[in-house]
Amino acid sequence: MIDKRLLEFAHRLADLARGETLHRWEAGCEAQDKGGEGGFDPVTEADRESERAMRALIEQVYPEHGIAGEEFADRPSQGPFTWSLDPIDGTRSFTCGLPNWVTLIALLRDGRPVLGVIDAPCLDERYWAAGGSGLFVRGGREGALKASGCAQLGSARLSTTDPYLFKRAEAEAFERVRRSVRTTRYGQDGYAYARLAAGTLDLVIECGLKPHDYNALVPVVRASGGAIGDWRGGEDLSSGNVIAAATRQLYEESVSLMSGAD
Amino acid sequence: MIDKRLLEFAHRLADLARGETLHRWEAGCEAQDKGGEGGFDPVTEADRESERAMRALIEQVYPEHGIAGEEFADRPSQGPFTWSLDPIDGTRSFTCGLPNWVTLIALLRDGRPVLGVIDAPCLDERYWAAGGSGLFVRGGREGALKASGCAQLGSARLSTTDPYLFKRAEAEAFERVRRSVRTTRYGQDGYAYARLAAGTLDLVIECGLKPHDYNALVPVVRASGGAIGDWRGGEDLSSGNVIAAATRQLYEESVSLMSGAD
Repeated sequence: MIDKRLLEFAHRLADLARGETLHRWEAGCEAQDKGGEGGFDPVTEADRESERAMRALIEQVYPEHGIAGEEFADRPSQGPFTWSLDPIDGTRSFTCGLPNWVTLIALLRDGRPVLGVIDAPCLDERYWAAGGSGLFVRGGREGALKASGCAQLGSARLSTTDPYLFKRAEAEAFERVRRSVRTTRYGQDGYAYARLAAGTLDLVIECGLKPHDYNALVPVVRASGGAIGDWRGGEDLSSGNVIAAATRQLYEESVSLMSGAD
Repeated sequence: MIDKRLLEFAHRLADLARGETLHRWEAGCEAQDKGGEGGFDPVTEADRESERAMRALIEQVYPEHGIAGEEFADRPSQGPFTWSLDPIDGTRSFTCGLPNWVTLIALLRDGRPVLGVIDAPCLDERYWAAGGSGLFVRGGREGALKASGCAQLGSARLSTTDPYLFKRAEAEAFERVRRSVRTTRYGQDGYAYARLAAGTLDLVIECGLKPHDYNALVPVVRASGGAIGDWRGGEDLSSGNVIAAATRQLYEESVSLMSGAD
């Protein structure tokens, strides 16, 4: 079980991040290019200041905890706990003035995510889970996380952020899934997993995710009754190839179309 | 010039539509299939009730005006004016519990859109234009519509709703543009044009739009200083192939890559 104080602390981190990101998004925030082999990779002052603020609070309250964030160097843990931080998941949307970006906060115990928060500041929504159960707030009302129960590809609502991220065999495999489902949506980054956990999307397939992208998603999706794993049917997400599904059956049906592509 | 009362009336229509759509989105709304050759084509009670409410108000206040909406049969005009209504542009997003859907309202005079409203209920944002000038409200604050001024494909932020809607030569042409721009986002439907008019996206390219999809966009984009036209450099949008750009130069650069594909 996760101490209640740790969950309360995760909410404090999410509040703090909102305080750094939301007003910069409203004012408009210039993107700089982090560069790298994948071409244009945007980062903003909001990413950096938000992560800086969360790190400072963790160092103050839990100096023995480790920190692994997107924008700065890892801080090793002196015990079982490490925080995984993505101040803005969806920086491209952020810099295009779109509301579909989230802050991702996870707590790892011995390397496994045991607490996750997905916070959507522009939408005033938050989704969180710890100890196997989870809640969300939308429109000022709290509800229990509950995946849809969809067990058939043919009736599934699929989401992926950017279909051009799939290369060669990946793209062919994704195409098989896309042609099998009822409808497909794009551009949602980590918010898609939140809506899966709330029951309005049924399937999310993505590649190239980093630990700070997926750690917070795992407790949230599992607390909703959904399944999340890799493209081969296992639980090792370090390849960055992730499938989240409303049910185990839908996950396995998707694995049967995606496996072999990674 | 457009009578101020007509603009005020358009806002009343948008308020009325919100009253029909937003609570159904929050509660979750089952999609029915309108069918048709393009496969699954969702429609909800929210689409129908919202359009029904707007039609009733128009018939009551302006019985001589025509009405052309997405969900019901056209009502011919007895004068120069016709209302073009799309109660939910982005019904797929609506049924996936995503906030990126809008209500589109346009007033046509002698067949040309002279007033446009793009309303985003979940985001509490509205964008409108008449008589060549336009405003928007976001986060409770009003601002003037102003496109970004981006004149180069290489620095442009591009958006399209679903890249799989482009077929064969269209897909190849879109791919040329996608490879030329700085970043591409997906899944925004009519909201993308609103963000272009507010200066945070620079380019939107889409195919297969219907008159109720594009009529409201035209006054909004033009009032922001942006350009909107077809893929051949003309103003006839009836092919459904639309390019909106922050500047005339960016529009023409895009036309040079897209023309010949339609």
